[in-house]
Amino acid sequence: MSRVVIVGGGFAGLNAAKALGGRKGVDVLLLDRQNHHLFSPLLYQVAMAGLSPADIAAPIRSMLSEYGNIRVLLAEVSAVDPSRSVLHGDIGEVPYDYLLLCCGSTQSYFGHDEWKAYAPSLKTLEDATNIRAKVLLAFEEAERIVDKDERRKFLTFVIVGGGPTGVELAGAIGEMSRFTLARDFKSIDAKSARVLLIEAGPRILPSFSEEQAAQAVRDLEHLGVHVWTSSSVTSIDADGVAIGKERVHAGTVVWAAGVNASPLGKTLGADVDRQGRVVVEPDLSVKAHPNVFVAGDLALYTHQTGAPLPGTAPVAMQQGRHVGRTILRDLRGEPRQPFHFVDKGQMATIGRSRAITQIGGLKLSGFPAWLMWLAVHIYYLAGFKNRLLVVLQWAWSYVTFSRGARLIVGKGTRSSR
Amino acid sequence: MSRVVIVGGGFAGLNAAKALGGRKGVDVLLLDRQNHHLFSPLLYQVAMAGLSPADIAAPIRSMLSEYGNIRVLLAEVSAVDPSRSVLHGDIGEVPYDYLLLCCGSTQSYFGHDEWKAYAPSLKTLEDATNIRAKVLLAFEEAERIVDKDERRKFLTFVIVGGGPTGVELAGAIGEMSRFTLARDFKSIDAKSARVLLIEAGPRILPSFSEEQAAQAVRDLEHLGVHVWTSSSVTSIDADGVAIGKERVHAGTVVWAAGVNASPLGKTLGADVDRQGRVVVEPDLSVKAHPNVFVAGDLALYTHQTGAPLPGTAPVAMQQGRHVGRTILRDLRGEPRQPFHFVDKGQMATIGRSRAITQIGGLKLSGFPAWLMWLAVHIYYLAGFKNRLLVVLQWAWSYVTFSRGARLIVGKGTRSSR
Repeated sequence: MSRVVIVGGGFAGLNAAKALGGRKGVDVLLLDRQNHHLFSPLLYQVAMAGLSPADIAAPIRSMLSEYGNIRVLLAEVSAVDPSRSVLHGDIGEVPYDYLLLCCGSTQSYFGHDEWKAYAPSLKTLEDATNIRAKVLLAFEEAERIVDKDERRKFLTFVIVGGGPTGVELAGAIGEMSRFTLARDFKSIDAKSARVLLIEAGPRILPSFSEEQAAQAVRDLEHLGVHVWTSSSVTSIDADGVAIGKERVHAGTVVWAAGVNASPLGKTLGADVDRQGRVVVEPDLSVKAHPNVFVAGDLALYTHQTGAPLPGTAPVAMQQGRHVGRTILRDLRGEPRQPFHFVDKGQMATIGRSRAITQIGGLKLSGFPAWLMWLAVHIYYLAGFKNRLLVVLQWAWSYVTFSRGARLIVGKGTRSSR
Repeated sequence: MSRVVIVGGGFAGLNAAKALGGRKGVDVLLLDRQNHHLFSPLLYQVAMAGLSPADIAAPIRSMLSEYGNIRVLLAEVSAVDPSRSVLHGDIGEVPYDYLLLCCGSTQSYFGHDEWKAYAPSLKTLEDATNIRAKVLLAFEEAERIVDKDERRKFLTFVIVGGGPTGVELAGAIGEMSRFTLARDFKSIDAKSARVLLIEAGPRILPSFSEEQAAQAVRDLEHLGVHVWTSSSVTSIDADGVAIGKERVHAGTVVWAAGVNASPLGKTLGADVDRQGRVVVEPDLSVKAHPNVFVAGDLALYTHQTGAPLPGTAPVAMQQGRHVGRTILRDLRGEPRQPFHFVDKGQMATIGRSRAITQIGGLKLSGFPAWLMWLAVHIYYLAGFKNRLLVVLQWAWSYVTFSRGARLIVGKGTRSSR
């Protein structure tokens, strides 16, 4: 009986586990520090009060409960010792025959960790509910404040980073203030909210074509979002951000700029890049340790195009599945196959009715792209029990322009009654 | 133009505001320290992972946005000065012509505030998500632990207080471990969880008849809950509770025993009882201050039966509406009417398919009572946009015995990835 240990219950880990689930000759132990798998492409919707945490997350334990050969434990892993084939963590020493490390990435502040206190990033459900509380409380503060400059500060929202997450956050804040909140506030004009999307590079959405990025800029501006490119943030504090000599007073700053791979990768002793991603072989194993695999955001896979594959859900899902199948091949005595990513395209939404999608040679924008985005995300949410609820809630929000989940709960809240 | 200030957006405040909404001659300002109204009778469902926070809460601001004469502000009120007709709070001094205080109650630990750290109570959404995290993490801990005694400790759940909240919590934990979690855990037998409901008085549910309370005890035992009556908790610490000389090792203790009225009531200078409830006149005003009203859990109303009315949602709703109408009568120069509570009965659920209800002379138990409970709660949730979702989620949970909302988020969580 081969013992497979999977660290991380994200897209890679879950798909590897499913590939191994119910198979003879393998015992799987999946470790994660959270009890839930997160459908992270929709995390910004939770941050923007469009969805509830339960709509995009499900307990890993119950997602895998049908498989008798898979055990799930809540655990924090601190290091890997590939020479002895053991893991170290808060549940002691864990031996393995095969290991899959897929514990993802964390936000990187490019060496300015002091910015984190003022500009939260969006990686976990907790981050999402905190950002939601921050954004909603900014409108509440503005409604209470009489001083015009202070009010303007609270109605200014800065998103740092023009990748898909930054674009989706900025679009959602723009839309929320224009359509959802506008009628709820009496003293302030919620529509006067100012949303800035700040990108250090020459344009936003560099993974899309120039035309599509330009279309996204126009769609964002339609929602009241100002896009500042070639603008590097030089400091962030409680009053806002500085871009060189220019200062923007803002009550809310959200960081969507860079990522670092999980520090666990470095404990393998293998080659890592500047972001901490582990260099993997064509079969996703680690050099000199054919029984250790890395997948998802933590892996640096360059064998297909020369450039690293992006840290997206489709890459993680396909890599996880590949590792699961590779282990089964090993057990059957068959040769390993190299991993090959099948690119099904990419998409980003702007507000609730526009998107840009790029699928092979087909590029769409506007409402047709949004419909495609919706269809794809409903399809991928299919693993979630509450898929029907998500669809209904979306449909409802879309028709009524209301936000069912517009609650302030958690850290951001004032003391409870 | 009369300025009406309402402190608290619970059942009383919301119903008073609605009675005054759109009426000529009144300007309403509603203050709350939370941005949401909470359907508190279902709070235990959030704590037990059956519902999501958004299912039972809605932003006060949007619930009242249709009324042009109502303003809602997030504010913390610290004192009332009825001699000058002003409030003091974090938004400065607020003058009023009419005041309605309806800021509810907090949990009381009977002078043992040090117990709070080990035995959280259930009053807010944050409390609910924290208790949920605590209960779910206890099962996760038990799955990790090898030592038998430690494991037994984490699988022991103590609920202190045999009123409706305690009964509903105990029933839900019993049911969750028997039916929902049982198949998810591989090492532990989730069914072996031990749930104790501890009540100091001679029986649980004293507001119900003896027969109904006895039926509830049998229903609870069917779900694996042990009911200990005439048992006073003498200490609570990280290892569990003591009842006199007896010690119960428990990983989770929840406090549902007593309430104190909001401390704001005392600042009125009127008579208060031991729990801090404000003694009100037959029209719900405060003696010597006919323009100041108190309603809901904060009011001590004894004019109808001699005994105080209970601190329930129906009492708060009817009192709030009565205060709103009384203010309109004043403005029209009509005489005030005394408040009269129309008792429509009471109900408590035990698990997901049993309940006890008492409506006038009609007493029901078991499944018929549960159906009635369901119908009444769906009816009262009607003010919420997401009513359809709640019904669907319930129906889904009921059929599949799964828990869509079984997520650990917030304080209880380990550090996020």
